[in-house]
Amino acid sequence: MDFIKQPMEIENRSMEIIAPHLEGLNLSPEQVKVYSRLIHAAGDVDYAPIIKMSADAIEQAMTALKGGCDIYTDVEMVRTGINKRKLASFGGQVHCLIADEEVAKTAKEQGITRSMAAMRKFGQEMNGAIIAIGNAPTALFEVLRQVEEENLRPACIVGIPVGFVGAADSKAELAKQETVPFITVEGTKGGSPIAAAAVNAMMYLINNNRG
Amino acid sequence: MDFIKQPMEIENRSMEIIAPHLEGLNLSPEQVKVYSRLIHAAGDVDYAPIIKMSADAIEQAMTALKGGCDIYTDVEMVRTGINKRKLASFGGQVHCLIADEEVAKTAKEQGITRSMAAMRKFGQEMNGAIIAIGNAPTALFEVLRQVEEENLRPACIVGIPVGFVGAADSKAELAKQETVPFITVEGTKGGSPIAAAAVNAMMYLINNNRG
Repeated sequence: MDFIKQPMEIENRSMEIIAPHLEGLNLSPEQVKVYSRLIHAAGDVDYAPIIKMSADAIEQAMTALKGGCDIYTDVEMVRTGINKRKLASFGGQVHCLIADEEVAKTAKEQGITRSMAAMRKFGQEMNGAIIAIGNAPTALFEVLRQVEEENLRPACIVGIPVGFVGAADSKAELAKQETVPFITVEGTKGGSPIAAAAVNAMMYLINNNRG
Repeated sequence: MDFIKQPMEIENRSMEIIAPHLEGLNLSPEQVKVYSRLIHAAGDVDYAPIIKMSADAIEQAMTALKGGCDIYTDVEMVRTGINKRKLASFGGQVHCLIADEEVAKTAKEQGITRSMAAMRKFGQEMNGAIIAIGNAPTALFEVLRQVEEENLRPACIVGIPVGFVGAADSKAELAKQETVPFITVEGTKGGSPIAAAAVNAMMYLINNNRG
């Protein structure tokens, strides 16, 4: 069993394999980095044509990150996947309320998901922040409701929930956004490592080295 | 924006959508549950024909879980994704050494990945346990080396690393296993939520209710 064991060699080889799948998509160098990390996290080149982002998403997110913005996630797996040491070097931290007792109580009382109740509890705290959703369509629908009804203005919504019930619809709604920069993936695919990868990719772009 | 907000309704509807994709695969009722959770976690029905497991994998894993076995993971995201409350109800816990300082030092000295060094440090502790790998092909190669060279005998290897460098090869090696029960996914796809979903599905099968 002979195989590549050296981390940077694995990463570089992976990026080489992904590169041809991005040809013809007219991406900026920054977009190439973000697309590549999403595809790498899923092990799935079929992500290439279904990744969607607003033209200013990466720039707005990077500016916010450099300014020390916080990140709000729907589930603990997204929090775990985000490079918190790198984020802390800019002054930011990650928040997740999925395991919060009050959130659990509210969710049960109202017959909604905990991640939806969590996003509702964060509310206006999320202004100027990055929101990273990797699991729950209900969390993304709730954030979009706040954008529309409560004038919430995050710096960027990374909305990549996964699954067969609501995920595709919630992401289609996100992709119509004109007031808030977004990064998403069309259809049923997605997940926590994909959402975390998008955030990490943008942090790594800032210094062009790993924190 | 009208959408389903009730957790059990979301889950049931998702399983209904997945069911037709499992027809013709000749699965046992237990396999249907495990397959469904993997597909659900990826939001990708193309997983159906590429999920592979030994005939006794679910039974062996369930027996070990009921007996209070521990779970060893390659990365923190797999640990995060596993239902630790449910696992604790059987007497088990999850171990991950990716953030261990000694492991980091060994990895750097030897020019190998931290997850590979972590699996090496666990060594014979993993006998009778479930190993859940959701990220690093190098971790899976290392476990297979221990099975072959050091007579390691885990109860089940859930080996679902992701990516373009080594993942497909490591999983093809796993699928040749005759001495240790395994669950895997062919090719480049996989990831931490998928590995965690396999473990959770088997725990949920034990009582047929959620812990």
